[in-house]
Amino acid sequence: MATEPIEENPAADKSGFAKSVVVVNTGDGKGKSTSAFGVMIRGVARGWNVAVLQFIKSGEWNVGEEKIGEQLGVEWFNEGEGFTWDSDNIDHDKALAQRGWDRAAALIAAGEHELIILDELTYLINWGWIEAEPVYEAIRSRPEKVNLVITGRDAPQGLLDVADTVSEVRKIKHAFDSGILAKKGIDY
Amino acid sequence: MATEPIEENPAADKSGFAKSVVVVNTGDGKGKSTSAFGVMIRGVARGWNVAVLQFIKSGEWNVGEEKIGEQLGVEWFNEGEGFTWDSDNIDHDKALAQRGWDRAAALIAAGEHELIILDELTYLINWGWIEAEPVYEAIRSRPEKVNLVITGRDAPQGLLDVADTVSEVRKIKHAFDSGILAKKGIDY
Repeated sequence: MATEPIEENPAADKSGFAKSVVVVNTGDGKGKSTSAFGVMIRGVARGWNVAVLQFIKSGEWNVGEEKIGEQLGVEWFNEGEGFTWDSDNIDHDKALAQRGWDRAAALIAAGEHELIILDELTYLINWGWIEAEPVYEAIRSRPEKVNLVITGRDAPQGLLDVADTVSEVRKIKHAFDSGILAKKGIDY
Repeated sequence: MATEPIEENPAADKSGFAKSVVVVNTGDGKGKSTSAFGVMIRGVARGWNVAVLQFIKSGEWNVGEEKIGEQLGVEWFNEGEGFTWDSDNIDHDKALAQRGWDRAAALIAAGEHELIILDELTYLINWGWIEAEPVYEAIRSRPEKVNLVITGRDAPQGLLDVADTVSEVRKIKHAFDSGILAKKGIDY
């Protein structure tokens, strides 16, 4: 047991205190990004430098969260803004995805943030829009103070392997299923 | 389909717009209360009156969240504070639990809050410290503007039945398992 933390997490020192952790929120249920938003607020409350990169527009976050984040000094990047979602334009969307990940990689490597949230990153990997291995390598080799929270459905195994904490949010029941429309303040 | 929202949720009008919803975050994974905390911030950002009742001390929330909440004008009640966790004192703890639930029921019925978070309420029901049926009835008969977020493991079926949205957070992997200690700013 004694050496496990070091093997599992390069940021953990011998006493088992991780200098930073990688959290993955995956699954088909609601709450993955909402939970990341809660961690964002916690980080801000601790005086951390926090950055949020949203790789897909129209997730659980919306302009409200962005507004709150920016009021609190969080750096916010809407990387998914320019997606065309058009199969004729797939190269354009892939290029945007790559640009978004490149920015994330640069922010991680710079080591200036105690918390970086990579919202809905899993899709870019799962759709093959960005290469998976450079993502895992950027996470493994990150500066030791950089905590990461990564959200999105179907987190690939390689991402689970580099994560310290993985939660799967399963949908048991959702108001949408019974015809109730999204509720401002709760769902977005 | 047309009448389902009305049957499922007494707060939904005929067009399917719910005046309020009941969200349950259950399961053994991390993120149930963190997600509730995210919803709390959203509610505050919308100018809602928000109350948080914590039924068990030492969940995922801590003094940091309480401090942020109170700065934002959230009413905060630590109902689990006086628990002895001593089998010789079970009646004392049960009485405290009942008092906590009574306060929750009064707040719900008063209809002065757009959002009330009942953190770790499920345990009180599961341990038999409070009666289940009055809880479900208080939820069903709440004033139409009162949104509820309820967290805790093993949400009982009766609670799932009165909920609009249920997410189960499953633990896939947790840093604690590999010997990494809780990380300030992420876990608490």
